[in-house]
Amino acid sequence: MKFELTILGCGGAIPTLERKPTSQYLNIQDRRFLIDCGEGTQVQMRKFKCKFSKIDHIFISHLHGDHFLGIFGYLSSLNLLGRNNDINIYAPENLINLLEAHNSISEKNFNFKIIFHPLNFLKFERLYDDKIMEVFSFPVNHSVPTCGFLFKEKTTERRMIKEKIKELDLSIESIKKLKNSENCEVNGVLINYNDVTELGNRSRTYAYCADSQYDEKIISYIENVDLIYHEATFLENMKDKAVKTKHSTAKQAATIALKAKAKQLIIGHFSARYDSVEQFSKEAKEIFNQTISAYDGYTHQLKAEN
Amino acid sequence: MKFELTILGCGGAIPTLERKPTSQYLNIQDRRFLIDCGEGTQVQMRKFKCKFSKIDHIFISHLHGDHFLGIFGYLSSLNLLGRNNDINIYAPENLINLLEAHNSISEKNFNFKIIFHPLNFLKFERLYDDKIMEVFSFPVNHSVPTCGFLFKEKTTERRMIKEKIKELDLSIESIKKLKNSENCEVNGVLINYNDVTELGNRSRTYAYCADSQYDEKIISYIENVDLIYHEATFLENMKDKAVKTKHSTAKQAATIALKAKAKQLIIGHFSARYDSVEQFSKEAKEIFNQTISAYDGYTHQLKAEN
Repeated sequence: MKFELTILGCGGAIPTLERKPTSQYLNIQDRRFLIDCGEGTQVQMRKFKCKFSKIDHIFISHLHGDHFLGIFGYLSSLNLLGRNNDINIYAPENLINLLEAHNSISEKNFNFKIIFHPLNFLKFERLYDDKIMEVFSFPVNHSVPTCGFLFKEKTTERRMIKEKIKELDLSIESIKKLKNSENCEVNGVLINYNDVTELGNRSRTYAYCADSQYDEKIISYIENVDLIYHEATFLENMKDKAVKTKHSTAKQAATIALKAKAKQLIIGHFSARYDSVEQFSKEAKEIFNQTISAYDGYTHQLKAEN
Repeated sequence: MKFELTILGCGGAIPTLERKPTSQYLNIQDRRFLIDCGEGTQVQMRKFKCKFSKIDHIFISHLHGDHFLGIFGYLSSLNLLGRNNDINIYAPENLINLLEAHNSISEKNFNFKIIFHPLNFLKFERLYDDKIMEVFSFPVNHSVPTCGFLFKEKTTERRMIKEKIKELDLSIESIKKLKNSENCEVNGVLINYNDVTELGNRSRTYAYCADSQYDEKIISYIENVDLIYHEATFLENMKDKAVKTKHSTAKQAATIALKAKAKQLIIGHFSARYDSVEQFSKEAKEIFNQTISAYDGYTHQLKAEN
């Protein structure tokens, strides 16, 4: 029942030795998702032992190079390694044209099919849906069309308290009703589902807010998330620069987490001008104490239990 | 009087943790050249302390991703760092279209001018010329149009033996003639240039042979070079695969170096299937003893003296 996020790169537009361009690897119950794919992502996946070839869904938030330039090399390596399963890419529409231009000049055809899903920058939209989870995109405020992504498990049905099944000699049909929060009559006795079942797994949620300036509009999309990643390119004394470049400060990221009633915040996308990022979490924690500064290779797990 | 080559990446098509995609940094008397620019080159330059912003000339041998995918991020970083000097790119013609497609979708304009020089895949051609050196391209045999590059210092004129200037009371005009290997009459005495001058610096040469199958046609372009870099993607027991993919084995690389009468060979572009590359230099040295196996960060200097 894994829900595990690995930060592959937490750098800003200019990569440094310690902080590579943006990319994240998310494993939700063995579904593997790649979120953004900056230059060098394939090597970062090797470095942090993220299963390279098991990704079926790639989400690209926007078309600034530090968020997508690694996709060409990554897809090419998948091809050389013999992949033939389809791969889904959710990205701004122009990316597919660029992928085709690359393949055309390299005289290359992939042995797998790319199923391309263009992002909608105007509204909250469901991109992915299966029996245990969903992924949504939501527009964020940056200098080019950009989306964040919300990963959300579905709530599972209630669980039977095992002893009660024997004790009350429950039929399969009754169990089905009780797990589905319905009361039910057994041998003339009304049984309240609350007395014989307990809560199932909760729905774990992760919101990736991409590159974005401070904008409270996103709060309605991500309210009450367990984990939020919000960029913090600058410290507060460079707020003007943040506004100008449509990025955020650490304090602004924390304010979004606070107002969204998130349980935990990870900040990243630190500008290359900062050698140390200690001051970032210090500034953020003044507003929202549950803040972690990302580093390349940082892994965060969300527990399944209520 | 530097002539220093740094291997930024010696990996094959699929990068590994130890061996990044192809790229080399060449410093000839403070002219800095970048040869190929695989994914992650900008970070490798930082890692090996190669002056990032001092490159004015980039040479791209061919349009397979492992040789050029780093150029988009590298140029973008140069731009963010405030570069406004022109940059020269020598590459297959399609690259400029791809660069324009990238800039167009990222809604980006560089603050510097790209002077683009399309490569000629049919003949040996001079790409660059200044008072101390020249660069030439030459066609090699690979699965897409590909060029190698020859970097060549010009031979400097002869040097006066200082004591002779005073001793013979030579005029500036006479010195000029003597350094230019002409005999000359001074005060009625014929002076042989050999008696009063010594050899100037020799012309140091480096041949980068790019990705190539074994093909003796390149020998005429690179004969007698000081240093040759030839790819060795496979070991000899995978010669068939080398032929099929238009790559070379270590033995084949060594045979080219031997027949070209090179002084020194560096082999690289090792396939990701090999963890250790020890066997590569072993196989190559059986043919050509002056072989070095490249590793990321390996630096090779050519001395100026005769």
